[in-house]
Amino acid sequence: MDYLALMKEISRPSPTKIVLIVIDGLGGLPNPETGKTELESAHTPNLDTLVTVGECGLADPIAPGITPGSAPGHLALFGYDPISCNIGRGVLEAIGIDVELQPGDVAARGNFCTVDKKGLVTDRRAGRISTEKCTELCRLLDGMSIDDVKILVYPVREHRFVAVFRGSNLVADVTESDPQQTGVAPLSITALNPKAAKLADAANKFAAQAKEILAEQHPANMVMLRGFSRQPDLPTMSEIYKLRPLAIAIYPMYRGLARLVGMDIARTGTTLEDEFTTLGQNYKDYDFFFLHIKWTDSAGEDGDFGRKVDILEQIDRALPDVVNMEPDVLVITGDHSTPAVLSGHSWHPVPLLICSKYCQPDGVRAFSEPAFLQGGLGRLNATQIMPLAMANALKLNKFGA
Amino acid sequence: MDYLALMKEISRPSPTKIVLIVIDGLGGLPNPETGKTELESAHTPNLDTLVTVGECGLADPIAPGITPGSAPGHLALFGYDPISCNIGRGVLEAIGIDVELQPGDVAARGNFCTVDKKGLVTDRRAGRISTEKCTELCRLLDGMSIDDVKILVYPVREHRFVAVFRGSNLVADVTESDPQQTGVAPLSITALNPKAAKLADAANKFAAQAKEILAEQHPANMVMLRGFSRQPDLPTMSEIYKLRPLAIAIYPMYRGLARLVGMDIARTGTTLEDEFTTLGQNYKDYDFFFLHIKWTDSAGEDGDFGRKVDILEQIDRALPDVVNMEPDVLVITGDHSTPAVLSGHSWHPVPLLICSKYCQPDGVRAFSEPAFLQGGLGRLNATQIMPLAMANALKLNKFGA
Repeated sequence: MDYLALMKEISRPSPTKIVLIVIDGLGGLPNPETGKTELESAHTPNLDTLVTVGECGLADPIAPGITPGSAPGHLALFGYDPISCNIGRGVLEAIGIDVELQPGDVAARGNFCTVDKKGLVTDRRAGRISTEKCTELCRLLDGMSIDDVKILVYPVREHRFVAVFRGSNLVADVTESDPQQTGVAPLSITALNPKAAKLADAANKFAAQAKEILAEQHPANMVMLRGFSRQPDLPTMSEIYKLRPLAIAIYPMYRGLARLVGMDIARTGTTLEDEFTTLGQNYKDYDFFFLHIKWTDSAGEDGDFGRKVDILEQIDRALPDVVNMEPDVLVITGDHSTPAVLSGHSWHPVPLLICSKYCQPDGVRAFSEPAFLQGGLGRLNATQIMPLAMANALKLNKFGA
Repeated sequence: MDYLALMKEISRPSPTKIVLIVIDGLGGLPNPETGKTELESAHTPNLDTLVTVGECGLADPIAPGITPGSAPGHLALFGYDPISCNIGRGVLEAIGIDVELQPGDVAARGNFCTVDKKGLVTDRRAGRISTEKCTELCRLLDGMSIDDVKILVYPVREHRFVAVFRGSNLVADVTESDPQQTGVAPLSITALNPKAAKLADAANKFAAQAKEILAEQHPANMVMLRGFSRQPDLPTMSEIYKLRPLAIAIYPMYRGLARLVGMDIARTGTTLEDEFTTLGQNYKDYDFFFLHIKWTDSAGEDGDFGRKVDILEQIDRALPDVVNMEPDVLVITGDHSTPAVLSGHSWHPVPLLICSKYCQPDGVRAFSEPAFLQGGLGRLNATQIMPLAMANALKLNKFGA
């Protein structure tokens, strides 16, 4: 079933408001010492109270067994099929540093690297030069024109940068120049289909000119490019759901993903309180809010069980700020699980709570993975969350007569 | 979603080991006298202990309501869509007697039958001749050449045999010669599309020559053919999952199904202990093991509730042999249910247990159908078992960045 097409057909504008709080990496696994997950270990009285009035379940961002990256995890939450809407590495890297891509742009990930006199790679990361040095070198390369293609170069961190190729008829279907090993020269970039010849040519010429420009910049005396990609041409959330959506996120990656699906992006600060304040300030002007909380994922990635528990408790303490705005629908979930015991994203389903006036009681009394197994929403796919939120906000017409 | 394509994209080789134990016909229904299923009736302390450390669920081999044969039941367990990968009867029959088909072969099921002087069928099973007689007659027909097509004939049991047509450009899209009734002549085999004309011609000539050869062999004086099929061209499990898979199965059908998906086939004995010993002997050389246990299904098919319970208890007693090998992932499930009260395969979902270090606790304490209703894996499709096993073995990369 094409869920998005159905949403587009039956959605209707209304004054009701939906708040989607994404606690990044929310789900976890038991601490071997206690047998309890991060959520079971955390003292979360406000979440536990919400559970009693809402409906709970467990959501697979992609499918059972599949560990999602942040991009597919979020696209699924916004209702988009995360497989067919997969986003290339270059675009993701650009999004992650707040580069606003234009339609038709091709973005690539770049590395500064070291080559010897014969042009063979001796260090794929150029000794991990400082971000300051990277910024300085990007300035040397930025703005090059090759035929009608303009190349914009943005520093990321250490040896990493983003190259955006802007011009007509650029097709991203090209090979990479990073040989993934030392002792060989960077590879020539070749078109994987005839339409991509123009981009391949521009990319090779860019690399050749970069080599000249960087000749005296040892160790960062060459560049390698990979992950050439164009941003997918997605229908916006306004088109699909007839919503006015606002994104509140501290990290650029999540703002970028929200921008991809047509959300407005709020200026906010650097703390959870800042994000909730931003929500309040914009509350009357929008009817859908995506609020992203990053730190749970970071703690999970660091394998820091205790810190993840602490952050969950902080979120719980701040939660009344949102509840008191009395959104018609409050959704609390994650884009994937990040169990501290795995120190990374995982395939485990993500706890999902939907609160509205129209929830069926399900008897769950605690916000945790094991408790949510008994939830009224059961086990569902994350792309089904938006339809449920829309339904609970009474923003969907009946299908069929 | 094309799960196999996704697996192929994100799977990675690793030293971790997966053991998939398929207890054929595992699921059951309550004995009307006790109200307990076979699994609830069996004393299975080892399974019950595994349940406390693993995650449980109920798997539909094809879909709710659909009773699978052994072939789709197993293909689903190996992660292949059992509908689109359906295997023809002729190929299945060949596989079931350990015939190794070559690419391009067409296999058909054959019956010896009795015809009268007018050529009309009087007995579709030739009085169920003995398997010895069948073997003798197959020898008379085996090795015939018709143009460039060679026809190999293998006895199965009683009046049943397999005919393998080996030659270039054989398309299996032909009608059958068995009229499914007496009093009429065997039907002429016709091509259902022009490319199948060559096979139809060879099959008709084979039948005509067989009639001459068997003229004096009353009651088995004619043959009928049906189920013409080619083996599907499936990607191997090594290609998809980057595994080195080994099959341990006592019955040829299951070895054949494993061979279809590219598993190596172990030599083993005739008992469960033999199979577990074979597993141990090969344990260091492979990273995926499919171990098939047949007798539960046979007892279920015979409607023998007590015997099925006994066999489940035998399996439970032997299980520590496998557990002590400490596989990274242990999966215990079935290819379908075979409730003794139905004396046959059924549509009921099959108990599924996955054990690894990365299981979310689900509170289930017994290995049975009703207990597994509360399992953390919920209700899932059997094709999702391999992705979950791969994930738990940390053999999958993240999807998307």
